[in-house]
Amino acid sequence: MRTSIATVSLSGSLTEKLTAASRAGFDGVEIFENDLLASPLPPEEIRARCADLGLAIELYQPMRDIEAVPEAEFARNLRRARHKFEVMRRLGADTVLVCSSVSPLAEDDDALAAGQLSQLGDLAQEFGVRVAYEALAWGRHVSTYDHAWRIVEAAGHPALGTCLDSFHILSRGSDPKGIADIPGEKIFFLQLADAPLLAMDVLQWSRHYRCFPGQGGFDVAGLVRHVLSTGYDGPLSLEIFNDVFRQAEAGPTAVDAQRSLLVLQETVGLSEPPAPVVPTGIAFAELVTPDAEPVTALLAALGFTRTARHRGKPVDLWQQGEARILVNTGPALRRDGTALAAIGLESPDPEGAARRAEALLAPVLPRRRTPEDARLDAVAAPDGTELFFCAPETPELPGWRADFADTSGQLPQEIGAERPAPGQLPTATGVHRIDHLALTQPWHHFDEATLFHRSVLGLQAQESVDVADPYGLLRSRAVTTPDGSVRIALSVGAAPGEDGAHAQHIALATDDVVAAARRFRDSGGRLLRIPANYYDDLAARFDFSEGELETYQDLGILYDRDAGGAFRHCYTRTVGRVFFELVQREPGYRGYGAQNAPVRLAAQHTAKRLTGG
Amino acid sequence: MRTSIATVSLSGSLTEKLTAASRAGFDGVEIFENDLLASPLPPEEIRARCADLGLAIELYQPMRDIEAVPEAEFARNLRRARHKFEVMRRLGADTVLVCSSVSPLAEDDDALAAGQLSQLGDLAQEFGVRVAYEALAWGRHVSTYDHAWRIVEAAGHPALGTCLDSFHILSRGSDPKGIADIPGEKIFFLQLADAPLLAMDVLQWSRHYRCFPGQGGFDVAGLVRHVLSTGYDGPLSLEIFNDVFRQAEAGPTAVDAQRSLLVLQETVGLSEPPAPVVPTGIAFAELVTPDAEPVTALLAALGFTRTARHRGKPVDLWQQGEARILVNTGPALRRDGTALAAIGLESPDPEGAARRAEALLAPVLPRRRTPEDARLDAVAAPDGTELFFCAPETPELPGWRADFADTSGQLPQEIGAERPAPGQLPTATGVHRIDHLALTQPWHHFDEATLFHRSVLGLQAQESVDVADPYGLLRSRAVTTPDGSVRIALSVGAAPGEDGAHAQHIALATDDVVAAARRFRDSGGRLLRIPANYYDDLAARFDFSEGELETYQDLGILYDRDAGGAFRHCYTRTVGRVFFELVQREPGYRGYGAQNAPVRLAAQHTAKRLTGG
Repeated sequence: MRTSIATVSLSGSLTEKLTAASRAGFDGVEIFENDLLASPLPPEEIRARCADLGLAIELYQPMRDIEAVPEAEFARNLRRARHKFEVMRRLGADTVLVCSSVSPLAEDDDALAAGQLSQLGDLAQEFGVRVAYEALAWGRHVSTYDHAWRIVEAAGHPALGTCLDSFHILSRGSDPKGIADIPGEKIFFLQLADAPLLAMDVLQWSRHYRCFPGQGGFDVAGLVRHVLSTGYDGPLSLEIFNDVFRQAEAGPTAVDAQRSLLVLQETVGLSEPPAPVVPTGIAFAELVTPDAEPVTALLAALGFTRTARHRGKPVDLWQQGEARILVNTGPALRRDGTALAAIGLESPDPEGAARRAEALLAPVLPRRRTPEDARLDAVAAPDGTELFFCAPETPELPGWRADFADTSGQLPQEIGAERPAPGQLPTATGVHRIDHLALTQPWHHFDEATLFHRSVLGLQAQESVDVADPYGLLRSRAVTTPDGSVRIALSVGAAPGEDGAHAQHIALATDDVVAAARRFRDSGGRLLRIPANYYDDLAARFDFSEGELETYQDLGILYDRDAGGAFRHCYTRTVGRVFFELVQREPGYRGYGAQNAPVRLAAQHTAKRLTGG
Repeated sequence: MRTSIATVSLSGSLTEKLTAASRAGFDGVEIFENDLLASPLPPEEIRARCADLGLAIELYQPMRDIEAVPEAEFARNLRRARHKFEVMRRLGADTVLVCSSVSPLAEDDDALAAGQLSQLGDLAQEFGVRVAYEALAWGRHVSTYDHAWRIVEAAGHPALGTCLDSFHILSRGSDPKGIADIPGEKIFFLQLADAPLLAMDVLQWSRHYRCFPGQGGFDVAGLVRHVLSTGYDGPLSLEIFNDVFRQAEAGPTAVDAQRSLLVLQETVGLSEPPAPVVPTGIAFAELVTPDAEPVTALLAALGFTRTARHRGKPVDLWQQGEARILVNTGPALRRDGTALAAIGLESPDPEGAARRAEALLAPVLPRRRTPEDARLDAVAAPDGTELFFCAPETPELPGWRADFADTSGQLPQEIGAERPAPGQLPTATGVHRIDHLALTQPWHHFDEATLFHRSVLGLQAQESVDVADPYGLLRSRAVTTPDGSVRIALSVGAAPGEDGAHAQHIALATDDVVAAARRFRDSGGRLLRIPANYYDDLAARFDFSEGELETYQDLGILYDRDAGGAFRHCYTRTVGRVFFELVQREPGYRGYGAQNAPVRLAAQHTAKRLTGG
């Protein structure tokens, strides 16, 4: 089906908006009146610009407070409408949105509304225009889609149909089933928006918190199925009022918008992009650093050994059990030094995974392939993190590690260090895999990141949680495979401008965090100190065996418990933007220690103040 | 009365919070449990720090999910409480807040609740602690203050009283009158918070949107009067959960908090600070600029003439009618050049105005006084703008202009220019006064700014409006005198980080904006171009006389109308951060053309793109 987006959903001047919509692959746009008024281009030029960009002008919007008013007022409204139809003629737009009236002058009189809308239809016909009448959720007398349809039906005018808007329908809790009773040819337009499930004034909710389908809590796909059952063949059009999108760059927002419609079309069976290929594990995490020493010292103390070096690039593989970390001493990507720049995802079908990512508009990265390199498909996540799809290592397929040459015994820090073979079972005190990766998202792209990881990678999103940092509130949300083999915790600051200040981290799974923490400390590692007051509180909340809490306090181990089990974890110091966490997770525990995050964040601020970095 | 603030209301580490509270003059604090847990200081040291800072620890908070639970659960709760009472003993805190339970285990059984709270009281007594039981607005079974009080009354325990929280009471729409029936000695604590009137989930409203008394929509003072009528003699304590305050610097937030309590105490008759002295006009606006030429060229084209120069400083007075603008070529205060740095307010009692400002914690600026200078009292507004209180010019008092020496005829640009005497009635085509000043506020200080202008200057606040900029949503709110002699429009971006990007402006009143705009253009001034599409829309919305709209379009004049009259206005280009507006306001019109602001903002972005600055 044709896709369309309302210009109000994107930031910038009208031409910036149009360009972004076109580049993201939209077929058309709704032109929001204020965007037209504020544009220095006359309607004819906007029309030509849209044509050049391959965009149809699907809708002009909105006309307000038209119907069910006293005669003199309606005469003024018709005069106003004539002006707007004239503008539409110049624009080449043939459908106009009329919102149900919120005017105090409007009367609760469906017959009057139908009669006046019919007169409006007569005028519209003169200009070759169709009128799509929509119930605003806060309309004065008409606030539900079935009510708006009854009025359109009563008017029985060929130039008058209805416009359905998923937000207005679902925010009111209306049952969308009744949509199936509307003849498809009388549904002149379909506007789609999702929203988080907030209990708040519906007008404020609509004006500030709408989001793209799949980013909120509404069953937008279910509604679309009802609409499709009528034979509706107009566009799927996004109309999103959102304070964040108003500030974000139009280009990425438009891509995100288009991706949401691609996923929606797949969900309702309108299209069949390549199926998601759910990753089966984390093959590696790659750190880029201008100076490898601080981070490799940390890795060595954590029990990692350098097992291999890339044949053609300054990249070392550090390994322990199934936890693999690449240290890339290429040019640092970020000014604040060491950063988590790439993730290797084990994939049963790397090419399929890459095809799906490309179909869902993930930027495909140039392949890292030299004559000797294994083929690696990679895309960029919304925060710029590179995602590599890595084949499992079988004798038939060259794995990504084929690019790495063995380096056993070459490095001084390995002398005396235990060096497990790849895939070897870890010792009890060791790290056996990456438990999760925690990535800070740019402020404008939190919901986008969640949708990306869900739709492109086939991960599942957990609940979003608020976490209090001493200097602001963070939001955090994990995306995971059902079996937990891949877990990525996405977080974002409550406000923009501090993206760089928030660290990323790699959480390493161990079966005995006490032993692992001790080994780290004995190897010269410094653990994040946790205040004694925290342990007093733990003692009040949980029962511990003799000496257990003292051990935790000594090592800075934090403790949490949910219905499924316990979670014990501790932290290293931060290098650049990156730190490590040692994690002992009982199998049933689902979380990430969010309960402890305020204490951890405060402790990191304290450590930074004490060391000045 | 004693004033207190909950540590959760301020950003930073616990010691940062305590220091900020002490500096702002608070007598005590509520210590929020998470702030204690996250602090590296043991309770004894926190106690000593508070003592050093002159702060009493008025409350430890909160204990949750204590009462009306099965016996085994209650035993665990008592064990937990014992730990907390022990911490309180070390802290030297003698009152603990217990919130009504939200636990799914809690039963709807007031007798059980009273019995268990009574047992908690027994335990508390052993530690010399008092328990203040509070109804959370979203408590599972107890959500109103009168219900909580009935349970406390039924328990009849000397160590058990109630805590009242204005947010929990007023957000539920409870009538606070019933407070007067509670014996004052059983009100163990009073927490105060205001909030904007939002229709939303009360928990989210409470956790993210609370603000200081006087900044929101609740009648906090009315509630306090009821509490005082009981003989309550505990502290007035602020407990504010607010996403913005969490990010803002603790120091200014604490001052703002204390100011809100000073104003509240004045309102309820607990204190009598110097009375507000409402300004009677704008004596001058002062621009600071690194290079006077661009801005004086603008002023000259607008019809201003340089009438005087400061005797001791590089400050020129430019005047037209009663509009006076000082151009100060001292060092620019801001990196982005020309800025509106100071406002002279005509005051019937400058010393009284300064005394009130000082009593309400406005930073008093060093007086600009040399042997020849007139005395000028000045304070800083929250955005850093200097506010001067200027005596009216009478023969007895030296006015601020006594510092300025006449310069008539000295400057080339004045040759041939009309030069009105100070106070002379303006010609029809001229500017006769400053209509309003528009100031961009730092993101964290919008509500603070409103409260400041209301309480310190005695101005009245109008409704807050949202204005769509192409790159984000702005909020704008005007503070005025009842007669409009002083009007200041405060605005703020929807997000931080862009404070410097938003311009300030000076709106100049004229009786004939067409003539004034023409004169400006004829004198070489450049008016902001407004798109033709805007005038098409005006034609649809209003009736204009023959040629009127064409004239407006030619000059870039915008038009608005409310029930009281019409508003016509146009804009100059921007110099540094500052631009000018010419305004023809019909006396009954109350607004500032907010309806037109999106078009104006888009046109300014267009102009910037075209000229590159």
